[in-house]
Amino acid sequence: MEVSVLRNVLDANDLIAADNRKAFDAHGCFVINLMSAPGSGKTTILERTLHHLNGRVRAGVIEGDVLGTLDADRLAPLGAPVVQINTDPHFGGECHLDARMIRNALDQLKLEGLEIVFIENVGNLVCPAEFRVGEDRKVMVLSVAEGDDKPLKYPLMFRVSNLLLLNKVDLEGHVEFDSARFRANVARVNPGLPVIELSARTGQGIDAWLAWLEAEAAVAKGGRHVG
Amino acid sequence: MEVSVLRNVLDANDLIAADNRKAFDAHGCFVINLMSAPGSGKTTILERTLHHLNGRVRAGVIEGDVLGTLDADRLAPLGAPVVQINTDPHFGGECHLDARMIRNALDQLKLEGLEIVFIENVGNLVCPAEFRVGEDRKVMVLSVAEGDDKPLKYPLMFRVSNLLLLNKVDLEGHVEFDSARFRANVARVNPGLPVIELSARTGQGIDAWLAWLEAEAAVAKGGRHVG
Repeated sequence: MEVSVLRNVLDANDLIAADNRKAFDAHGCFVINLMSAPGSGKTTILERTLHHLNGRVRAGVIEGDVLGTLDADRLAPLGAPVVQINTDPHFGGECHLDARMIRNALDQLKLEGLEIVFIENVGNLVCPAEFRVGEDRKVMVLSVAEGDDKPLKYPLMFRVSNLLLLNKVDLEGHVEFDSARFRANVARVNPGLPVIELSARTGQGIDAWLAWLEAEAAVAKGGRHVG
Repeated sequence: MEVSVLRNVLDANDLIAADNRKAFDAHGCFVINLMSAPGSGKTTILERTLHHLNGRVRAGVIEGDVLGTLDADRLAPLGAPVVQINTDPHFGGECHLDARMIRNALDQLKLEGLEIVFIENVGNLVCPAEFRVGEDRKVMVLSVAEGDDKPLKYPLMFRVSNLLLLNKVDLEGHVEFDSARFRANVARVNPGLPVIELSARTGQGIDAWLAWLEAEAAVAKGGRHVG
């Protein structure tokens, strides 16, 4: 019974996600759902990314947090419109974004002229992986400080993601993280998952991430033209 | 309506948590609910802790993970009985432990003779804070690699916890973490929360944590005797 309840929730979510998708398509927006555990560096990566895109590619951001506008405040000066979602109408707050929250955010984010929309999910390695929001690509961030065992412990997020950004590689040597073991663990749950090593702190790997973004946006745009 | 659904779920959970509590009390077990984001170091802290307690205090462990037995396998050689809960009967898995899962685990964990039971929750800073499982104390772990802003972004867990273990302090200087700002952020959401700085990697601060554990266990035991 619990399984069918869950399926109903996810089915209802997918219908709204499809509506969001149509709205994004209508404006030619390429949409990234950025997911990770708390403190993996999603916002710092977005800061770097928006800084590089500024003046070249028009980007918008939807920020998901249980509470507060800390991340939106960090991103606001970088030239992209930012809309904040707080998932805390209830005790504790929701631990993920769903399609309905994104639909509500679209009342505030003008899609006209935006080429890329980044959706920064709530920091959580479990539930965000279950909810489509209308994105083109799911990108997960993992910090080396979180350990090389995470693919085996939180497999769904590794399975549904189109790209893994392995962040804070400047900490390698200071933390227990075996790169070869990590790659092997990733291969066990999602052998095709591309991994880009980066450090949002030093800027290492940002070029590779921007190149991926540009290439995938072009692929998505081509797909929409054909469709 | 959603609020009342949530309240019903939590009320039902609390009834089972009270049953668990009675079972723990009947055997004089002091129970810690250990919570954190993924990769904060809960298991490494437990390894250190069990190593120190071994031969002095009889401890048991209930391990919560979405999938797998990686953490239980790490703890098994340390002389304490370990029971694994996997929260993944469904797509994606549950992102927290609840009282019913702990009740089921008690079918496998013999409480007779156990003085301390550690419950290692699923790695997540949101939902585990909402579910009582019958514990005496909630202890949260935060790694400095996660950043000093987390109290403002995930306030409930900081509010419900009785102790904060600030882990990986050996990384200070390598990550963006301002200790004074962190303390101020903690004070904004829970001014009375004690903080122990430690490094499960180097062993720094483990003594203070063991002393807290011993003192709190004595307080809890006294309370049970009086009650």
